[in-house]
Amino acid sequence: MLPQEFGKGLTRDWRPEPSHHHLPRPLSLTMNTAGDEEGVPGGRAEPAQQLGGEAAGGKAPSKLSAHSFTPGWTKVSCTCCVSERVEPLVVVKLGQKVIPETKRWLIKLIGAPQKDGGAGLLAHPGEDATGNIIVLSAPRCTLLRATEELGLCKIYRNGDMEAFAYDDRKHFRDSENMEVFLTSAERQYIIKYELDGLRAQKDLRIPGLLDSCTLQKRDSIWQKLRAAGVVVDTFPLHNPGKLKDLSEAWYCGNQLAQPLDKVNEYFGSSVAFYFSFLDFYTWSLLPPAILGLFIAYFSIEVQREMLQSVSGSQAEEVQNEPEPLISGHMLQAVFSMLWSTVVMELWKRRSSSLSYRWGTLNLAERFAEPRPGFHGDLGVNPVTGRMEPLFPEWKRDLRMALVSVPAVGLFLGLVVLGMMCFYRAEAGVKQLHKDWNSMVSQTLLYVPSVLHIVYTNMLATAYRTLAQALTEYENHREESAYDNHLTGKILVFTFFNNFAVLFHIAFFKQDVPLLRKRLASLLIISQVVNQVTEVVIPFLVDRFISAPHRTESEDDPEEDKFRNQGTLPLFPGLFAEYIELLVQFGYLSLFSCVFPLTAVLLLLNNLTEIRSDAYKICKLFRKPFTPPVAGLGVWQLAFEVLSFVSVVSNCWLLLLSPHLQGLSQEAGLSDSNLLMGAVIVEHVLILVKVIMAALIPDEPDWIRKKREHIEYTSMQALRQQKLNVQES
Amino acid sequence: MLPQEFGKGLTRDWRPEPSHHHLPRPLSLTMNTAGDEEGVPGGRAEPAQQLGGEAAGGKAPSKLSAHSFTPGWTKVSCTCCVSERVEPLVVVKLGQKVIPETKRWLIKLIGAPQKDGGAGLLAHPGEDATGNIIVLSAPRCTLLRATEELGLCKIYRNGDMEAFAYDDRKHFRDSENMEVFLTSAERQYIIKYELDGLRAQKDLRIPGLLDSCTLQKRDSIWQKLRAAGVVVDTFPLHNPGKLKDLSEAWYCGNQLAQPLDKVNEYFGSSVAFYFSFLDFYTWSLLPPAILGLFIAYFSIEVQREMLQSVSGSQAEEVQNEPEPLISGHMLQAVFSMLWSTVVMELWKRRSSSLSYRWGTLNLAERFAEPRPGFHGDLGVNPVTGRMEPLFPEWKRDLRMALVSVPAVGLFLGLVVLGMMCFYRAEAGVKQLHKDWNSMVSQTLLYVPSVLHIVYTNMLATAYRTLAQALTEYENHREESAYDNHLTGKILVFTFFNNFAVLFHIAFFKQDVPLLRKRLASLLIISQVVNQVTEVVIPFLVDRFISAPHRTESEDDPEEDKFRNQGTLPLFPGLFAEYIELLVQFGYLSLFSCVFPLTAVLLLLNNLTEIRSDAYKICKLFRKPFTPPVAGLGVWQLAFEVLSFVSVVSNCWLLLLSPHLQGLSQEAGLSDSNLLMGAVIVEHVLILVKVIMAALIPDEPDWIRKKREHIEYTSMQALRQQKLNVQES
Repeated sequence: MLPQEFGKGLTRDWRPEPSHHHLPRPLSLTMNTAGDEEGVPGGRAEPAQQLGGEAAGGKAPSKLSAHSFTPGWTKVSCTCCVSERVEPLVVVKLGQKVIPETKRWLIKLIGAPQKDGGAGLLAHPGEDATGNIIVLSAPRCTLLRATEELGLCKIYRNGDMEAFAYDDRKHFRDSENMEVFLTSAERQYIIKYELDGLRAQKDLRIPGLLDSCTLQKRDSIWQKLRAAGVVVDTFPLHNPGKLKDLSEAWYCGNQLAQPLDKVNEYFGSSVAFYFSFLDFYTWSLLPPAILGLFIAYFSIEVQREMLQSVSGSQAEEVQNEPEPLISGHMLQAVFSMLWSTVVMELWKRRSSSLSYRWGTLNLAERFAEPRPGFHGDLGVNPVTGRMEPLFPEWKRDLRMALVSVPAVGLFLGLVVLGMMCFYRAEAGVKQLHKDWNSMVSQTLLYVPSVLHIVYTNMLATAYRTLAQALTEYENHREESAYDNHLTGKILVFTFFNNFAVLFHIAFFKQDVPLLRKRLASLLIISQVVNQVTEVVIPFLVDRFISAPHRTESEDDPEEDKFRNQGTLPLFPGLFAEYIELLVQFGYLSLFSCVFPLTAVLLLLNNLTEIRSDAYKICKLFRKPFTPPVAGLGVWQLAFEVLSFVSVVSNCWLLLLSPHLQGLSQEAGLSDSNLLMGAVIVEHVLILVKVIMAALIPDEPDWIRKKREHIEYTSMQALRQQKLNVQES
Repeated sequence: MLPQEFGKGLTRDWRPEPSHHHLPRPLSLTMNTAGDEEGVPGGRAEPAQQLGGEAAGGKAPSKLSAHSFTPGWTKVSCTCCVSERVEPLVVVKLGQKVIPETKRWLIKLIGAPQKDGGAGLLAHPGEDATGNIIVLSAPRCTLLRATEELGLCKIYRNGDMEAFAYDDRKHFRDSENMEVFLTSAERQYIIKYELDGLRAQKDLRIPGLLDSCTLQKRDSIWQKLRAAGVVVDTFPLHNPGKLKDLSEAWYCGNQLAQPLDKVNEYFGSSVAFYFSFLDFYTWSLLPPAILGLFIAYFSIEVQREMLQSVSGSQAEEVQNEPEPLISGHMLQAVFSMLWSTVVMELWKRRSSSLSYRWGTLNLAERFAEPRPGFHGDLGVNPVTGRMEPLFPEWKRDLRMALVSVPAVGLFLGLVVLGMMCFYRAEAGVKQLHKDWNSMVSQTLLYVPSVLHIVYTNMLATAYRTLAQALTEYENHREESAYDNHLTGKILVFTFFNNFAVLFHIAFFKQDVPLLRKRLASLLIISQVVNQVTEVVIPFLVDRFISAPHRTESEDDPEEDKFRNQGTLPLFPGLFAEYIELLVQFGYLSLFSCVFPLTAVLLLLNNLTEIRSDAYKICKLFRKPFTPPVAGLGVWQLAFEVLSFVSVVSNCWLLLLSPHLQGLSQEAGLSDSNLLMGAVIVEHVLILVKVIMAALIPDEPDWIRKKREHIEYTSMQALRQQKLNVQES
């Protein structure tokens, strides 16, 4: 169903049946001094109508003309935003106990202009004023102003992307038509942004609530409402028509390329960046996969040796053939070490062109209002000159250094402790089983593993809570800084948790065959498990448990459909997807020389992963609010760090490899000479990687030129402005 | 002598004697349509007069009022620049064969306004039109416009540093008075900048020159004139009065702090940055020096052991006392490794505050005209929209990768080759001497060393020429990029040349006692040699060879004094000073654990170095042209790289140290275990350094805020400007 039909749907349901009329009316009495039901027809409505015509074919305009008003919606404050149809964007779910008075107050607040302390949005009380949802939309001016505040770039009349300016809106392409000008994700995010930005202009009592819930000046109203249970949930609405188009272009056919621009349009840049990276990364697996296959096919001896070393009988073969000086493993390792740097540098370039294309190259989060959770002494921001809470940088640094770092360290220590206990317990139990050899000792064999899994899970849960609390305590000003610090904390822990065992095998046990076995099983099992838990289970749950309660027919009122979307599970965010990629990348880059087919397996996995992730986000979850972002954020750093750590680990594993050990014995090299050689190779490789990373520019030439052009013109403009100010 | 007295000097010499009048007159006829000798008295001249009063005490104003015109100088094109006195800033020395016609043409060109293709400067033909010098100065408007073009920041009316804008000049503090507003170094650099920027507006024949010297459109005139031998030399003039003040505050007394702001005023920011760094670095030597003394004093055993290992009899002492687990060397090494990162990070912060203070924080070199040597196809610069030669980035990268890098590599190879030949020859000669034991073989012993020194010097000279040619070939657009690439090339070679022998001893011979001996002798001898060659010899030459020809009395004509300054040797640039610091820093950080007193020796050396360098630049050389810079440029990078390399080298040296070897033998560790331990320590230290470097912000908080504020306001201004343009 297309957006304008949504609007019509609302109109149709709420107008023809008189039974619905008596309830929205009190709203219109409180909200609108002018007539509510009549709307303002006129020239402004033309473009929207044309769009409707374009999008829905020839059918729509004739129907649309029948409804030239938007009953039930709060009135817009400026005439330029009056439109004959309103696209429902976001649903706010209220608590069960919320009385109509509170709901009316809330609708009034949301609809009030921003200068009066409102959100400047459009609100609709749903089917009736006692219902527990409010449907939100945004008028043009609010959307455009927020676009400027967020620092989004849009297409200027000369075809370049330029930072949008509200006052200059006429010269931006399509700025009349919000459904083309802003992506659907941006429109919805802006509503969230405005709601989060609601602050009490003075001390305030919320009608219908206890006195304990009074708002103090500058309190975040939305936070308070959530805390008080008035607002239970806020979620953006799916657009079934668009979603269908998107899914057809994305995962239904056999297409190789993803419709990334459409993904950005529908799900926003943070989701689009994930899928772009997944795409880029998958294709960049081709060279190591081909090399891996090549090595596995041609250097049969090495392969056989490897297989034999897994099965434990290698003695016979070694003497038969002269060993080549450079084994396949070495080739694979050196290639994958250099390859990972090249891939990450190329991704940075791709990332910056995508971010230019999607208008997020110079997001102005630093200059916007701080995030709602940010607190501090009220003062004048030295950068923007606005009044807002301030929190000194050094205090945050101190909190990070003295609280967060030790806490994270403690938990990493607990992971290691758990692992050590597990190993000791396992050894003890095995000994016990040998001594007793009874049924009891047989079952006891599984106890350490079970205990370890339980311990690890508990630790992970506790850590997640702690990480959230710590990041909140660090009091970051920007949403993205908060996200990055939170993600960073969890990421370090999760990664550590995933790799502790492998590192233990590689660096302490120094048992390459065991490592190879583990790695192969991890690669295969974890991928199967991932696919099952991520897609199959949610799909089954959705199909057989949730869906029967959610059957909807075309004739259902729109509101019920909205409510139904609320029953879908919350989108869990991209953390799990990213960490999966990172762990994969870790298997590949850290231990690639052990198992040459890693890249092949990962390539196969990722080709299905793209589709299953796309299916998942489209079908199984509510649509998420996604902030506009300019790249991968902290994940970028994580991948780069991993790419450097991989040099250390690969050199070490090569040193342990039986092949090299054999060679050095033949050549009569001592252990320390061999080690010295490995250290030198490692240093050279790291040096080469650092130089490569420094030499490959992080952004394409054309973007650099555009950026410098913007810098230059804004420098000029600043001078001009100072002059104008002083002359006038 | 103070600036306005200079001006008066010229006036006095050139007016009262009628014999001088007939020659400047043709100039004034060609240049000035209005009367030449009368000047324009009035309000504009007031501030300059006041300054004169401030600077020279009560004596000046009464005399100044007697000369309210500036005879001999070319006429300024705008009335606002008319001033009653002109400060001679730069002297251009012409070739012997230059005929008066060419000189007149040149003066006319220099004096013509910029829109007519001139330099917009003030020129004076010197004592008479046949003389071989031209004295230059700059009118106010030219200075101010160039200040804007260079992107210099000056104090705005609100007290902040802001990028200067010509149109907004009224609101910058002291913008009426060039001698306060711009530093003397800036005024002189601007003259050079304007001369270098002279480009032929159309095809042009230089009068009095052969036809082969015709200029094509957009040719750099100044380059052509130098090539044709018309201009032999261009140098800025010393101001004896200011120089005396500066030297008194700088190196004559016993003061500890340097007058860095005054240095910046007189010699410009690049010199001031060198001395600031020297200062900062010297004080930062205190902690390692104290630690070194502490170790040398308290851990007597270690010290004795060290001394004994130098003299070769260590066996007896070792068993007497139990060795401590952590030796003084180790402590020293770990401390100095971490210390070097902290110092470099703190220096970055200091550097950015100095650069803010000196107005060079956002130099706009990228947006200014390309350097004169830059060539390429004429096109529109996509950043500034101006017509200028363009040269694609990828072509430059290609040239660097395919030509420069292999060439530099080749020369580094030649250094190594030379060293290897030297060692082989030395060994051969020693063998020969043993076999023959005659006078001939005795003398032959010195041959390899002599040959090696000759070879190294020839190589260095050849390399310097090559580096220049390569950097020219790379065709950098900005002067600073050219300088950095040239410096970088020579620096790598010089450093390699300096350290090849030490690295050879440390890593191949693995002979710590020899290294210690070498290091100690290098530290002491090289410093003494440096001080002698850098200061004592130039001083003696100046005092006893040059100076007798240059005795000047108060009554000499100004022009002769200017000419005399031309006989001083050219300032050789700061390369030698920086490389000395870098090599020092290398001794200290790379091999600190070998010789704990390094920091003490360096501290002592640097305390004298500050004074001797200051004396040298003030007294022994011509004043240099120094471009405004925002920091150390490529030297910063060199110091940082060295600080990381030091971890590798220190860990290696500790591994070799007899102390650790003894300890590990006692503990029964194998060689490879010990090596493994060293590798782990090295990795941890590098990790810690990377984290420290990432965590310490590169600029102080208040500068970050100012920078962000500028970004914010210019973003706002850009929006505003676009709006204004479209409305009008």
